[in-house]
Amino acid sequence: MNGLTTLREMRPERVVRLLDAAAAHRDAVARGEEVASPRAGQLVALMFYEASTRTRFSFEAAIHRLGARPMAFQAAGSSAKKGESLLDSVRTLVAHGASVVVVRHSSVGAARFLDEHVPVPVVNAGSGTGEHPTQGLLDLMTLRDALGTMEGRRVAIVGDVRHSRVARSVCHGLVALGAQPILSGPGTLCGPELAALGADVRPTIDDVLPDADAVMMLRIQRERLGTAAMASVAEYRRRWALTSERAATLAPSVPVLHPAPMNRGVEIDGDVADSPRSRIFDQMANAVFVRMAVLEEGACA
Amino acid sequence: MNGLTTLREMRPERVVRLLDAAAAHRDAVARGEEVASPRAGQLVALMFYEASTRTRFSFEAAIHRLGARPMAFQAAGSSAKKGESLLDSVRTLVAHGASVVVVRHSSVGAARFLDEHVPVPVVNAGSGTGEHPTQGLLDLMTLRDALGTMEGRRVAIVGDVRHSRVARSVCHGLVALGAQPILSGPGTLCGPELAALGADVRPTIDDVLPDADAVMMLRIQRERLGTAAMASVAEYRRRWALTSERAATLAPSVPVLHPAPMNRGVEIDGDVADSPRSRIFDQMANAVFVRMAVLEEGACA
Amino acid sequence: MNGLTTLREMRPERVVRLLDAAAAHRDAVARGEEVASPRAGQLVALMFYEASTRTRFSFEAAIHRLGARPMAFQAAGSSAKKGESLLDSVRTLVAHGASVVVVRHSSVGAARFLDEHVPVPVVNAGSGTGEHPTQGLLDLMTLRDALGTMEGRRVAIVGDVRHSRVARSVCHGLVALGAQPILSGPGTLCGPELAALGADVRPTIDDVLPDADAVMMLRIQRERLGTAAMASVAEYRRRWALTSERAATLAPSVPVLHPAPMNRGVEIDGDVADSPRSRIFDQMANAVFVRMAVLEEGACA
Repeated sequence: MNGLTTLREMRPERVVRLLDAAAAHRDAVARGEEVASPRAGQLVALMFYEASTRTRFSFEAAIHRLGARPMAFQAAGSSAKKGESLLDSVRTLVAHGASVVVVRHSSVGAARFLDEHVPVPVVNAGSGTGEHPTQGLLDLMTLRDALGTMEGRRVAIVGDVRHSRVARSVCHGLVALGAQPILSGPGTLCGPELAALGADVRPTIDDVLPDADAVMMLRIQRERLGTAAMASVAEYRRRWALTSERAATLAPSVPVLHPAPMNRGVEIDGDVADSPRSRIFDQMANAVFVRMAVLEEGACA
Repeated sequence: MNGLTTLREMRPERVVRLLDAAAAHRDAVARGEEVASPRAGQLVALMFYEASTRTRFSFEAAIHRLGARPMAFQAAGSSAKKGESLLDSVRTLVAHGASVVVVRHSSVGAARFLDEHVPVPVVNAGSGTGEHPTQGLLDLMTLRDALGTMEGRRVAIVGDVRHSRVARSVCHGLVALGAQPILSGPGTLCGPELAALGADVRPTIDDVLPDADAVMMLRIQRERLGTAAMASVAEYRRRWALTSERAATLAPSVPVLHPAPMNRGVEIDGDVADSPRSRIFDQMANAVFVRMAVLEEGACA
Repeated sequence: MNGLTTLREMRPERVVRLLDAAAAHRDAVARGEEVASPRAGQLVALMFYEASTRTRFSFEAAIHRLGARPMAFQAAGSSAKKGESLLDSVRTLVAHGASVVVVRHSSVGAARFLDEHVPVPVVNAGSGTGEHPTQGLLDLMTLRDALGTMEGRRVAIVGDVRHSRVARSVCHGLVALGAQPILSGPGTLCGPELAALGADVRPTIDDVLPDADAVMMLRIQRERLGTAAMASVAEYRRRWALTSERAATLAPSVPVLHPAPMNRGVEIDGDVADSPRSRIFDQMANAVFVRMAVLEEGACA
């Protein structure tokens, strides 16, 4: 109930409240303060039906920082094989005392379905090619830090936008805050959902960089792309990579983001990733603070 | 030493003391009280040589609720492959500071053997087709809540009783509390051990339901049953499933239990599992409280 | 930065300071005192690219005893497969808030490389056939307890010294404390590194036992030994095993160590491992205290 499963049509006030709460956590940690969270001592269940390294790690870091306890449900393990339904599995975790359930699942609608059927918040940690709302929020937080305000800003998102749940979530979030996504990438980019947002779609990265107040690069996900969609890495680089040369054409104030893990030398050059305009490691730090804020939503103080 | 490895021939006072301690934990959690456990800050080792999802999860939840720290020993990992004996592995965990060791192992006698050879309590979290005493206790707790008292109660246990360590443990527990198991299931049901308990064995579920004060359904464990023992799911359902129709013949006061995970539509119909008489999710909640009580046994206050 | 990656050329004062800190933790635990560590509440990342059971378990125990939080990075999981560089992975963990990073990696130089490139201490938990410095320290601690002082002591190390990162680290540590390693084992034993230490190399265990103030046995690591290097277990036992008969020739004051897991009946007889001179389970207990001391290095009080 009332968990975070999508950024689509999220009210701007909720987005801002979450970003502000995340920033407050960041400030408190910087001052060395202990967090006094309503989630302290509570159990947070982690159900990862798809592999995850960094998302899972940062959720666990967030849970620890709240003084709560991460409880890994071995999703690939025995109960799923024994034929138990996903809903029964989640109801089990709630019966065992979980106060929040974090779910990554290959099915686009899984997190939302679960959130509608259990009495605790369900947080979507990635749903197939659907959404990845906490990643979207941490991108928004990082962009807001860099740009001061999001209203009217143009944010280039370059890569396999169509298959990227990160891109989909951040597009919804940008629209909620009055910013404008500009998209470029291989294949038929935009599903009807993003088109309905009025996203501005252009053929190559060179068509978006001149107008961008910020640049978000996406990782090439070979496992999700068909071979036909991307002729070769060289061809990809020619049309969509953020090379050192291209980065040199950007104003110094234009930040560069990437959800990581990076393929250095493929979609982004290593020296761009390590340059002052890179906010990539800020994104990682913000990941923990955003997830703290999300996990605290709905907790009784 | 003095861990919980079996419910066989357990003194009734110990069963009652554990159930009462579990109920006290449940009440304290319901009142929002912090647990002040003698196990707080201690390390509890988890050694799972067989896969487990919910048992492991609920042990971890119990450990967290006591303020203790779960320490997973990667039982399938390197040391076992390197030829180390099971006893040396457990002695290692004790040397590393574990105050209690929770073991699931395919060998029936493993937990008892270990408990006899190390200076901390060993808790049996499932030993092959032997016993699963903490599951038995949580079933007893749930039954006692539903029935008020166990003395003289008749409890139907339906399914593959012969191969079920849950059934074996709960039968021992029922006898300790003066209740009467009534068994039904496919194949040659009763080992000599259960026969010695004087268990009442009947051909089909329809022979046990009219006399039952409570009904415990068991999961079909295809991995443990031979194909010859169970002709087909349809045949199984005809003779042993708790269907909606059969459940409708029970008095409203008769509770239904299932150790989960359920095969809805096989051994139990989904609407029975979700009906008011179902105590299945109560069992899960009680699992944590019973395991808290078991883990606290033998701790110095 | 300033993590523990090797015992080679470590200043004796640092070795002694770490051993003393470990002993202080042991005393405090024995008195039942709470640890008030500068690491309390901090996140410690565990990156195990090679399998580990006991090293990992004892690091986790140490982290828990400090009041810190272990965060497992699923090193075999998705990000590595996605082509991320090792350095980017570690930088990610630091960005997520890790205060210390514990790394086991098949590459000899990995831990040192990482320690030089991230702003938190990196602790080497085993680097291929390179070093295993925390194991070396816990061996030194156990030896110092048994022998009183290390200055001038002769310590026999018997087994596959050449491929043993444990042996390499402990040799460096012995030299730092003024003790003398005496080595024996199959094949061409000594790399140039140990020869440069002036290690005394002898053909069989019978050549080292008469002069030894302490005996460290190494585990046969079949996975690292070629078949040519070790004709048979019987041959190995004939030349290098610590049998009951050989142990009987040692003075009662000579302690026996083994890094475990043991192959009882191969490199060491079971009754020797369980005899009063065995310090093997002391080593395991000391493992936790040494790792507490190592993890605390560089923390701001």
